[in-house]
Amino acid sequence: LRNWQRCMDNPGYRTGSFDGLHHPSDDDDDEMVDIAGATLDFSTTDDVPPLSSGNPAVTENSSAGVNGNGPTKLVDPLEDPVPGVGTYEDFNTIDWVREKSKDRDRHREITSKSRQSTVALLHSVSDAFSGWLLMLLVGLMSGALAGGIDISAHWLTDMKEGVCLNGFWFNHEHCCWTSNETTFQERDRCPQWKSWAELITGATEGPFAYIVNYLMYIVWALLFSFLAVTLVRAFAPYACGSGIPEIKTILSGFIIRGYLGKWTLIIKTITLVLAVSSGLSLGKEGPLVHVACCCANILCHLFTKYRKNEAKRREVLSAAAAVGVSVAFGAPIGGVLFSLEEVSYYFPLKTLWRSFFAALVAAFTLRSINPFGNSRLVLFYVEFHAPWHLLELAPFILLGIFGGLWGALFIRANIAWCRRRKSTRLGHYPIIEVLVVAGFTALLSYPNSYTRMSGAELISELFNDCSLLDSSQLCGYQQVKTGVGNTLADRPAGPGLYTALWQLALALVFKMMITVVTFGMKVPSGLFIPSMAVGAIAGRLLGVGMEQLAYYNHDWIIFKGWCSPGADCITPGLYAMVGAAACLGGVTRMTVSLVVIMFELTGGLEYIVPLMAATMTSKWVADAFGREGIYEAHIRLNGYPFLEPKEEFEHNSLAVDVMRPRRADPALAVLTQEGMTVGEVESTHYSGFPVVVSQESQRLVGFVLRRDLLISIDNARQRQEGVVSASQVVFTEHAPSQAPDAPPPLRLRGILDLSPFTVTDHTPMDITVDIFRKLGLRQCLVTHNGRLLGIITKKDILKHMAQIANRDPDSILFN
Amino acid sequence: LRNWQRCMDNPGYRTGSFDGLHHPSDDDDDEMVDIAGATLDFSTTDDVPPLSSGNPAVTENSSAGVNGNGPTKLVDPLEDPVPGVGTYEDFNTIDWVREKSKDRDRHREITSKSRQSTVALLHSVSDAFSGWLLMLLVGLMSGALAGGIDISAHWLTDMKEGVCLNGFWFNHEHCCWTSNETTFQERDRCPQWKSWAELITGATEGPFAYIVNYLMYIVWALLFSFLAVTLVRAFAPYACGSGIPEIKTILSGFIIRGYLGKWTLIIKTITLVLAVSSGLSLGKEGPLVHVACCCANILCHLFTKYRKNEAKRREVLSAAAAVGVSVAFGAPIGGVLFSLEEVSYYFPLKTLWRSFFAALVAAFTLRSINPFGNSRLVLFYVEFHAPWHLLELAPFILLGIFGGLWGALFIRANIAWCRRRKSTRLGHYPIIEVLVVAGFTALLSYPNSYTRMSGAELISELFNDCSLLDSSQLCGYQQVKTGVGNTLADRPAGPGLYTALWQLALALVFKMMITVVTFGMKVPSGLFIPSMAVGAIAGRLLGVGMEQLAYYNHDWIIFKGWCSPGADCITPGLYAMVGAAACLGGVTRMTVSLVVIMFELTGGLEYIVPLMAATMTSKWVADAFGREGIYEAHIRLNGYPFLEPKEEFEHNSLAVDVMRPRRADPALAVLTQEGMTVGEVESTHYSGFPVVVSQESQRLVGFVLRRDLLISIDNARQRQEGVVSASQVVFTEHAPSQAPDAPPPLRLRGILDLSPFTVTDHTPMDITVDIFRKLGLRQCLVTHNGRLLGIITKKDILKHMAQIANRDPDSILFN
Repeated sequence: LRNWQRCMDNPGYRTGSFDGLHHPSDDDDDEMVDIAGATLDFSTTDDVPPLSSGNPAVTENSSAGVNGNGPTKLVDPLEDPVPGVGTYEDFNTIDWVREKSKDRDRHREITSKSRQSTVALLHSVSDAFSGWLLMLLVGLMSGALAGGIDISAHWLTDMKEGVCLNGFWFNHEHCCWTSNETTFQERDRCPQWKSWAELITGATEGPFAYIVNYLMYIVWALLFSFLAVTLVRAFAPYACGSGIPEIKTILSGFIIRGYLGKWTLIIKTITLVLAVSSGLSLGKEGPLVHVACCCANILCHLFTKYRKNEAKRREVLSAAAAVGVSVAFGAPIGGVLFSLEEVSYYFPLKTLWRSFFAALVAAFTLRSINPFGNSRLVLFYVEFHAPWHLLELAPFILLGIFGGLWGALFIRANIAWCRRRKSTRLGHYPIIEVLVVAGFTALLSYPNSYTRMSGAELISELFNDCSLLDSSQLCGYQQVKTGVGNTLADRPAGPGLYTALWQLALALVFKMMITVVTFGMKVPSGLFIPSMAVGAIAGRLLGVGMEQLAYYNHDWIIFKGWCSPGADCITPGLYAMVGAAACLGGVTRMTVSLVVIMFELTGGLEYIVPLMAATMTSKWVADAFGREGIYEAHIRLNGYPFLEPKEEFEHNSLAVDVMRPRRADPALAVLTQEGMTVGEVESTHYSGFPVVVSQESQRLVGFVLRRDLLISIDNARQRQEGVVSASQVVFTEHAPSQAPDAPPPLRLRGILDLSPFTVTDHTPMDITVDIFRKLGLRQCLVTHNGRLLGIITKKDILKHMAQIANRDPDSILFN
Repeated sequence: LRNWQRCMDNPGYRTGSFDGLHHPSDDDDDEMVDIAGATLDFSTTDDVPPLSSGNPAVTENSSAGVNGNGPTKLVDPLEDPVPGVGTYEDFNTIDWVREKSKDRDRHREITSKSRQSTVALLHSVSDAFSGWLLMLLVGLMSGALAGGIDISAHWLTDMKEGVCLNGFWFNHEHCCWTSNETTFQERDRCPQWKSWAELITGATEGPFAYIVNYLMYIVWALLFSFLAVTLVRAFAPYACGSGIPEIKTILSGFIIRGYLGKWTLIIKTITLVLAVSSGLSLGKEGPLVHVACCCANILCHLFTKYRKNEAKRREVLSAAAAVGVSVAFGAPIGGVLFSLEEVSYYFPLKTLWRSFFAALVAAFTLRSINPFGNSRLVLFYVEFHAPWHLLELAPFILLGIFGGLWGALFIRANIAWCRRRKSTRLGHYPIIEVLVVAGFTALLSYPNSYTRMSGAELISELFNDCSLLDSSQLCGYQQVKTGVGNTLADRPAGPGLYTALWQLALALVFKMMITVVTFGMKVPSGLFIPSMAVGAIAGRLLGVGMEQLAYYNHDWIIFKGWCSPGADCITPGLYAMVGAAACLGGVTRMTVSLVVIMFELTGGLEYIVPLMAATMTSKWVADAFGREGIYEAHIRLNGYPFLEPKEEFEHNSLAVDVMRPRRADPALAVLTQEGMTVGEVESTHYSGFPVVVSQESQRLVGFVLRRDLLISIDNARQRQEGVVSASQVVFTEHAPSQAPDAPPPLRLRGILDLSPFTVTDHTPMDITVDIFRKLGLRQCLVTHNGRLLGIITKKDILKHMAQIANRDPDSILFN
């Protein structure tokens, strides 16, 4: 229930240590050194004892530095003397520099050993290839899971309408494969497939059968959604939502234990199928990214290299995000670019290659499973017959504006709704909320065939270019037998098409409304498909409008020359595709990756310019109303400690304005490199401390984490005789002379980080933020003229940024 | 001639300040602080005067920091008080942090002003869109230039064989467009097009005509290559080579003035056409990247934002590299990925979007010019009819191994040859060298039709899938009339094909040899086409071999089931494509971008797996022989200060091992923040100095460049009365008390960088190298327990890396 509470607060993490209050005893690294109180006095007498030329501490420290034993002892994972030192607590931020350094040390160790024996050489080779092997496994597992999800969702979606007599495990299409009916029209109603009305009452037609089917549809929708929300609630609260905001945060270095665990994977996979099948306005694409990341995280446990290193594991997770999109759309290159543009924080070239490999493996695994039954890799296969004309850029840009407006509006409405859910009693009844929304969705969507079909089917139909034999309502044109010109020429709309347009317009309004309340409920829910559906409907409507305009007014100057009668000049399906890209772009602010995904769907370079024009317009328009995409907005809503790499730091403050202690606070809590006792160290409050030469000089020696300190002292108590509270803690290389009756000193130089990052107090914050982002720091010490002055943590920066943006720093970050 | 000398030494830059010697008077920032001499004494008496609590300097310094006036004064480009401060000399490295900070200040200024007036608001809006406008212009200009180059090269290439009677400015194809001959076969020999033999002697057939044509071919080749090398020599020595190694170096922050200038652009464009037309074994793809970068650099001058900021300009250049590849292959996405994977150093997401936009604009400009006359965007349009079988992965991997071996071999041989050129007298006769190679190439390539045609034509023909009516020799199969199965079924090879195979084998050997000596000559020369040609030939040979093997042994177990008689199971054109990718991958070590380029050429996802398998194998095999691609190898050969972002720093040294001064050297040259005179400052030798509180305390205040110091002092002499050699130079916020008769002090805090980067002496070098790479530093100061100890420059790191790799640091970097 404790975990559930977390997801309820979405995520709140109130039970974690991440609440903005200063718990003296907690290990929150982000809290680090928070000081409030008296004025920091720069004018303290600076009484540095002159170092004699024979001072052993200094001389030997520097020689220790030269032979390179200092920090490597600390970070060597293979000979880590104290287990636990260098690990992280839940809800903390990792230190990228330390993790990467650890991995390099491990690699050096293996390389140097490999020259000694054949076994070690084999180990070295297997270590080098373990990354590729892991990628292969991630690709295979994610591809297989995605295939399973596709097949199950298809089956359960059909289950809402009827059942197969040959076996209830067949979906409508499979059920009718064995049917003898050969006509395409008739195959849809093969005798083996019974609608619920037929099965229960025997009636196939008429209002009574309709009502029975309608009711069964609603009952199934409620059942599926109830199962989904109950499973999430009972077993894996982290399985709710799309997961992309959390994955972005995790990739940036935050630790949320269990978010990518096996229970989350199992429950998310099952409930995703249920949620999609229940007919809610949500997609499976975002959650597939989460599923792929769970696979990657679990598979990481097979390899020491990735299990033990948080930075290396995040490289694998970045690749897994690419895999997720690759299997969601069948677009491996788009997936890699999505991971690069939208999700990842640290994306070295090596990860680019591996992501690409994994994405390909996953796409081909999925193709072998062949869930769509058409041997196609892609979710929506489109083939258009006519090229586009330069003048069509105007409607395409119009679609971009629509997409941008819708994106901005959707983000505002959704965030407002989610905030209401968190702040009012609504949030306490997630199951009822899901049931109400699911029931309402089913009630309203059944009568309209465009909302009744699944989002993916709808998009597929809207993207489709009408061929002559197409029986769909959208292709209900009047047959004009002119005998001249293109056989696919533009034709006037018939009554079927007019009905379809009305239904589409209603579906557009419905989808726009319902998606706002659906995204953020306690079931797995993706945004890609609903956003694309909205855009595709709008695009198709505009496309048909343009087509009819051109047909009836082909003598207008703008249509002259390229849209003569008998020419196939306007492709409404292309407008639907452009609209879908524009709306998805407005919501997520993706650009290049989105265009590439769309390009992979169609397989032609021809349509890049329309897509590019629409997505760019959409991004610009949406950015004018607020620079955050939906994922960033949810990250901020949930108060994750995420330092946005895209946003520029605009304010001209300096490091000294952001650092702790503030000017009115008491001085920074520091340890001295010698002279402190175990008791004094244990009674400290903050989770990390700079170590200085002496209180008077404030000259920085290194940085130590309280967690490492306590673990080491505990360990020393167990292994070493005579460690008492009065024992001296010594961070120098050699113990100072002591009174003969004093207990032996405890030497802890091994856990001291001898290379803490420092900036001067005059460093502009834009540079400091850049350093934090690029190097992945947790904290940075601030000096003035060589003396330690304060500390800046990632949290201080986030609070400062919130303050600048006129948001309350505490309510924003730690609600 | 001085410039010419530079290119002769390729680049040597001996005439610049970049020669590894310590010129006391030069401004080489990389030279910074180079000290040799006595032992560094850590044990100097550290006699810091205790600061009284009322010390005005310290108190006011910190308050100055708080109100934020300190460093912004220094870096504000709009109010730059002293012109010249903050600019760079030729052959220096830029400071990315300073440049980016400058741009952010400029942006802040514009934003804050925009609230005041409408004009300022318009300025702000135009400033925001200037980047996109610039991209549009770069795309248009590069696309137009590429189109011009394509058309001219086509024309001049045909000129070697004959001339059009309708007008000498028509190429063979254009000349025959108006011809009445309708047969495809006959169109090739239309009456308007006269070979040289026909024109001169009237003979169209026979050995005499052949010899005349042969001689004319050689004469034209010699003429074109002579013109190319002479133009390069006379006007723009930087126009030689492919330019990619230099562009990589420039993008990493080095300054080579004129390398991207207008003369280089003009001469490179002209000589590229000549070099390609001369029949030398080189391509125009690499040089097109250089041409696009020149365009971008020239267009940057239109916008203050980009003209004045070296970092912003490099963002544009990164995008231009994408544009270059986009127009070279007609592959915009591949171009962007090429820039990201291969060329760029700093590639933020904003640049990704803009690169993509520019690449698209360029591709469409090129398509409108339509240089290939087929309305296709891509250089090699391929359409294959048959899918590939999983078992074919074995030959594809074999091609990958071949590509990797050839890549490794080529790099070694080419580097050895280039080194020989630099070290022997060969390098003194570039014109003769080019003429000899061109003559030799023409002599050997004319008799073989596969070497006579241009590289692009050859690749195009090798990629081609044989249709039934294909008249090419490569499709010289026996006609088997079975009446069953696929009309494109595998057929036995006929005599035409056997001849073609022999010619191809000879062409393979010839291309492999001649490319080694061609790349690196003093003409514009790209590597893409020759490498791809080698791979395509090898691939086609293997493909035809496989095809015949499968045809004659279709009962073998490996062919059973997928290669029955009458089936079109093996596509030799696909093997050629895979081989081309493998060889290009082996030479350049590109992977993802290469696959995407190839994928854009074919427009089908189907062939990604074969391409990926081959390029990955090729990269692994080639990496086993040496981790450097051809561009990195040339960067190292030429001694550019390039810090490879891909390579991990493996050694476990510490900052103290790399920093200057070394342990046996005299102490670091520093300035004190007060107490030094103008005369003392002017007589200093190094190009940059840390400023400390006092010589005794060695507590760091900031960093100042000698160039800025001298400019400021000169400026002060002109504007301020009483600046003499005895004037005190003061870096503190407030001038100290002085004797009343002393000259007024010169206050230079404005040019002081108050936020220099520091690391501790114990920082592992892998972390330090990471910091240098990610932040783009030029130098970093080293402290020990808060006292200044030394300095590390980018050059120190490069020297250290060379030393670790057992290369002589001086000979490698500064030859």
